[in-house]
Amino acid sequence: MPSTLLAEIFRGNEVESRHTGAFVVADTAGRLVLSGGDPERAIYPRSAIKSFQALPLLLSGAAERFRLTGAELALTCASHVGTAAHTAVAAKMLARAGRDVECLECGAHWPSSNAAARALAAEGRHPSALHNNCSGKHAGFICTSIATGRDPAGYVRPDHPTMRDVTQAVSAMVQTDLFAQAPATDGCSIPTYRIPLTALATGFARFGAGTGLPEGFAAAAQRLRDSVAENPAMLSGEGRFDTLVTAAFGTAVFVKLGAEGVYCGALPALGLGFALKCDDGSPRAAEAATAAILRHFLGPHEVLENLAAPKLINWNGIEVGRIRACVV
Amino acid sequence: MPSTLLAEIFRGNEVESRHTGAFVVADTAGRLVLSGGDPERAIYPRSAIKSFQALPLLLSGAAERFRLTGAELALTCASHVGTAAHTAVAAKMLARAGRDVECLECGAHWPSSNAAARALAAEGRHPSALHNNCSGKHAGFICTSIATGRDPAGYVRPDHPTMRDVTQAVSAMVQTDLFAQAPATDGCSIPTYRIPLTALATGFARFGAGTGLPEGFAAAAQRLRDSVAENPAMLSGEGRFDTLVTAAFGTAVFVKLGAEGVYCGALPALGLGFALKCDDGSPRAAEAATAAILRHFLGPHEVLENLAAPKLINWNGIEVGRIRACVV
Repeated sequence: MPSTLLAEIFRGNEVESRHTGAFVVADTAGRLVLSGGDPERAIYPRSAIKSFQALPLLLSGAAERFRLTGAELALTCASHVGTAAHTAVAAKMLARAGRDVECLECGAHWPSSNAAARALAAEGRHPSALHNNCSGKHAGFICTSIATGRDPAGYVRPDHPTMRDVTQAVSAMVQTDLFAQAPATDGCSIPTYRIPLTALATGFARFGAGTGLPEGFAAAAQRLRDSVAENPAMLSGEGRFDTLVTAAFGTAVFVKLGAEGVYCGALPALGLGFALKCDDGSPRAAEAATAAILRHFLGPHEVLENLAAPKLINWNGIEVGRIRACVV
Repeated sequence: MPSTLLAEIFRGNEVESRHTGAFVVADTAGRLVLSGGDPERAIYPRSAIKSFQALPLLLSGAAERFRLTGAELALTCASHVGTAAHTAVAAKMLARAGRDVECLECGAHWPSSNAAARALAAEGRHPSALHNNCSGKHAGFICTSIATGRDPAGYVRPDHPTMRDVTQAVSAMVQTDLFAQAPATDGCSIPTYRIPLTALATGFARFGAGTGLPEGFAAAAQRLRDSVAENPAMLSGEGRFDTLVTAAFGTAVFVKLGAEGVYCGALPALGLGFALKCDDGSPRAAEAATAAILRHFLGPHEVLENLAAPKLINWNGIEVGRIRACVV
């Protein structure tokens, strides 16, 4: 598992911790433009490919039938932080398909926004499956099931027809037959498959540029990208990496984190896609390295500077160190 | 920075993430009994040496003068999770010295126990410096300052006489002149110094066995170890590694985590000490590897089995993977 240094964590002037990993930037033909570590390493992309998993929602006609809004489509690609604004959009999607929270099979967890979690607790409430960071993606699976005349029950299982459509769409995006694999189980209970970094990067290059894709995929991808660009807060939450970058760059950049230190995304105008995995699963290193990669291709930008080299501030507001991306 | 594999994170049957680092188990003479990676790597031990930093509280007579209880002494060695039980003990310590929360210079943060944070929010309250995981250590510094006739103001600064006593005590424990270093700043604003792993492990072996120490140190160390063993919940919190291990083994094991993937501790009956640093700062790998090291010396025990190889459970309660320590 050859790796490269992704980021160093400084305390004072000394390196306290360090993160290694691998990354690939590729064009739509699968040519490597930049890489570090083993470009063929197979990883679980986790939530980084929610935008691929949302394609059947558009391809099936479900999005049109239920007149899904841009915010709703953005939420299907999201790992949201569970604010009232996010859960309201997820609930609305379910209502459009004549369903409610009871139909979600993602499980419940406290909002990943600490402020949202405390606000919920202050109201004496407990989280539901709507607060799960994946609730938008799951609401999309349910809309797809209903629109195609399927019982959504068990939609998280690999053999459910809607989940098979999802796996088929992801397979097409990464040009890899995922049905040949025994999947593992993701945090939200859907299957997760191992995919090589270069295949992911190439898939995202095509997702961004709209070339080299099966019929209908390019329009569906553009609808998702536009929806996310118009609703950056839906993609994650206030102050979070994905929301900050999307708010700053709009349709010029698509970025999405995955659990265990994964980032994937696209630079549509440049015809490039990227995929990155931090060996140890750390989001702080994956974020800093991704920001540095984006800066390399987009040029200096205040948002990227701050994300590639964030200061570490202690409980008294004193700067005690910093993170430094080491990839480019 | 030669490293060794500390732990692997499995999703299904595949390794999804991995953690490297270095560790040392040494005896009171500084002889290596077990190690992985570079045993001379200098690390910031962070909160793992709070028990060393608490020694001047006893050596100065402050603990006796203020009649500090076992729970209070345990809290000086702790990174507590900020429950009402923890903050009450910190407040009581300050009251014994005629001070209150206003004297603490550690800064405030929400309790690291999510349940405690939500309980605080549900009461419409905000955290104070008493909720800081280091409030017991800081209350100890204040008690030491008052007992020795010093103004506690500025006690977090490296040149405050109480902090100089603390640095002197740590220097004696690890037989390293820390005054020769320019310190970095810890999360709670006190200085933190780089110390080689072998020096830390040897210091903890002596802390546990009570041998090879300056006059008065052995009795002070034993008082702290006994206080922690009698009050395991003070050391961290319910369900946390340090509390679980201390509750299971009492005076037979002393363990303490530090930020950025550090663990230090002692096996007093065996005359051994240990120090471990995970390269990437991950607590999950540091915990699993520490549990495996303890199991290696203490033999099989249910608590250690669970901590060395914890199952990963998703939001629906499905087992999706596991952590596996790789050190011994």
